[in-house]
Amino acid sequence: MMSENIQTSSRMEERRRLQQWRDQISKELDRVMDFWTKHSEDKEYGGFFTCLGQDGAVYDELKYIWLQGRQVWMYGRLYRKLPRFHRQEILTAAIAGGEFLLTHARPSADSLKCAFVVTRDGRAVKIQRTIFSECFYIMAMDELWRTTREERYKKSARDMMDQIVHWVREDPSGLGRPELPGAEPVNSMAVPMMLLNLVDQLREEDEEAARKYEELATWSVEKILQHLQRDGQAILENVSVDGNELPGCMGRHQNPGHAIEAGWFLLRQAITQSDHDLGRTAVEKFVLMPFLSGWDWEHGGLFSFQDVDGHCPTQLEWSMKLWWPHTEALIAFLLGYLETWDTQLLDGFQKVLDYAFSRFSDQEYGEWFGYLSQDGKVALSIKGGPFKGCFHVPRCLYMCEELLSKLLEEEEEDRQAADVSP
Amino acid sequence: MMSENIQTSSRMEERRRLQQWRDQISKELDRVMDFWTKHSEDKEYGGFFTCLGQDGAVYDELKYIWLQGRQVWMYGRLYRKLPRFHRQEILTAAIAGGEFLLTHARPSADSLKCAFVVTRDGRAVKIQRTIFSECFYIMAMDELWRTTREERYKKSARDMMDQIVHWVREDPSGLGRPELPGAEPVNSMAVPMMLLNLVDQLREEDEEAARKYEELATWSVEKILQHLQRDGQAILENVSVDGNELPGCMGRHQNPGHAIEAGWFLLRQAITQSDHDLGRTAVEKFVLMPFLSGWDWEHGGLFSFQDVDGHCPTQLEWSMKLWWPHTEALIAFLLGYLETWDTQLLDGFQKVLDYAFSRFSDQEYGEWFGYLSQDGKVALSIKGGPFKGCFHVPRCLYMCEELLSKLLEEEEEDRQAADVSP
Repeated sequence: MMSENIQTSSRMEERRRLQQWRDQISKELDRVMDFWTKHSEDKEYGGFFTCLGQDGAVYDELKYIWLQGRQVWMYGRLYRKLPRFHRQEILTAAIAGGEFLLTHARPSADSLKCAFVVTRDGRAVKIQRTIFSECFYIMAMDELWRTTREERYKKSARDMMDQIVHWVREDPSGLGRPELPGAEPVNSMAVPMMLLNLVDQLREEDEEAARKYEELATWSVEKILQHLQRDGQAILENVSVDGNELPGCMGRHQNPGHAIEAGWFLLRQAITQSDHDLGRTAVEKFVLMPFLSGWDWEHGGLFSFQDVDGHCPTQLEWSMKLWWPHTEALIAFLLGYLETWDTQLLDGFQKVLDYAFSRFSDQEYGEWFGYLSQDGKVALSIKGGPFKGCFHVPRCLYMCEELLSKLLEEEEEDRQAADVSP
Repeated sequence: MMSENIQTSSRMEERRRLQQWRDQISKELDRVMDFWTKHSEDKEYGGFFTCLGQDGAVYDELKYIWLQGRQVWMYGRLYRKLPRFHRQEILTAAIAGGEFLLTHARPSADSLKCAFVVTRDGRAVKIQRTIFSECFYIMAMDELWRTTREERYKKSARDMMDQIVHWVREDPSGLGRPELPGAEPVNSMAVPMMLLNLVDQLREEDEEAARKYEELATWSVEKILQHLQRDGQAILENVSVDGNELPGCMGRHQNPGHAIEAGWFLLRQAITQSDHDLGRTAVEKFVLMPFLSGWDWEHGGLFSFQDVDGHCPTQLEWSMKLWWPHTEALIAFLLGYLETWDTQLLDGFQKVLDYAFSRFSDQEYGEWFGYLSQDGKVALSIKGGPFKGCFHVPRCLYMCEELLSKLLEEEEEDRQAADVSP
């Protein structure tokens, strides 16, 4: 009787904690989206300004294609999934962003590649020799198709997906990188991660797509798992194409936020496929392990980069605390908890949440700062820039709100089942 | 009589200050060069390791061509100019570095471009679409010619010089950058600065070269002066090719260390040409102005980047204190004093010297740390990396030692002249 009471009271406390988090996160999502809808939409040319100061003022009009695609995706997803964002102005801005991408993402009509950055009116400024602009273009187009059911968005997403799979798995020459005798091909974790995330997007409630991309998902998982090195004791960001450690800084390079993000991408795959072994590897090796070794136990926050052998990284920002590893950790901890019911994941969630809400979140103007010094002071006051837009923060808050609702529902169902049991 | 005594005592104090600086700097140069000669030479393949930890241990074997060229130049210059470095092992290492560059700087025999980075044994890993690897290749070859008098080094330097002048002034297509509709050509200060510095190198005691490159020097000075904007109140790093301000972050970008370095390049030109107007502009606008606006009056040290309108820069390291702006300021202050005899330049020199010797200089293992946090703590413990090698610190110490000797000589001549005057 005694132990039953303790259990009940502990469950009630757990429930209160989940409810409190959901309320806090839901309010924060509203504040964050207010910031972007108010300051970032370009009503004249379509698309979004992302170079925004602390108060939302535009300090540069350039449009970065990664961030255009991500913001279209975010708007479409919120419109489609959360009733309070199912508003005409969200849809209108998403479509205007999608049309901007359709017209201007490619430097010219016959170009297969997308630009990295364009002028406000859409003229190409720079092209990267990677697949990432194209990946976020696909995210935008697929989400816009789901939101509007206009087939041309779907077609554009699928055509581009075929193109990047060709570049990654068959022939990279179209990316424009020269082949050099000292540059052996690398399995950079970003690439299979991104592909797995795209498959997750494309297969949603679409059996045909799920079948079409099943083998690609399996391949991507395999390529991600190759980054688990040193007898399973470290995630390395770059390995050889046959999954071996590379020499020098590149081979020893670690990016805790990236490993944790890969963790929740793997978890999504594990949950979809009911693959509990993969789920356990994702939680233990890609979420908990990089969190424990990537957390700054002196000042708090996740390091940006580390060297697996403890050398000092050469990236100047290695010890700075960036917003996005923290948003990815929040998602990963909740999704991991849903898979394993291991409460140390909730403790991790609490730790990161406390850090993020007290350090990154801007109580004055909304949205989060992106860049803190090692000891947690705001190092850059900007809210958006070439690499930070309307994406990681609202994606995290939306996903956590959804996950917490699901956890509360499951807990409620469990409780009711217990009540009627003899 | 009284005022004469004060003048004499003040001059003696000045002399003591110059002597003290020269002793301090001369000792530091020895300690710094000990670090590089002990740890960086690759006795097997030639060339230099530059990825060195605090204690000099090699943490990556990649060879960055900028740094290979710079170290060959530095070794050659010290061998040639300072008797205590006129040692066989310095010459041998310089030649081995030069031969490594001759054999491996170009990715293939028919390549006009140099690589940016190669493997230890010289296989190209990456090529930049700029002229800077080639510039430091020229510095190395020209200095090696002056050191050894072997004509093939001279020819290699001159041929490459013709090539980069062609890329900069006639046709940039060989650099491999795509022409894009949103990317208008930019006058980036680094390019004319580098060309002016190369002319300064190539014309030393060579009348024919001085004549050949005279027009290029004039053109470079003109292009550098276009960066003086806002009614002479700011140096902007990027302007249009016709010398107007550009929009956005790129147009507002400031790099105090670069402006100050341009200042002493202009001063070298002014002294060579006895152009005192140019000398005054160099000191007032390119040395003192960027120093006063680029100095962090709260924590000390020069900011890495600023935005002329006070926006937060988007570069993550904008508030970090890097070694090289401080070495360039030391050279600029002394060279400016030699031109103007304005004692505020010596006060500036003292301020930067105190900061640099107390924060950057590593008393334990020699050489300087390269990267401090805004408040002056060591942020990266490395002594060398992809962008820091055996160059800025020893070049500064060597030039300051030479300048201080010259100032002491001139002061001595003045004093003797005064003694014999009636």
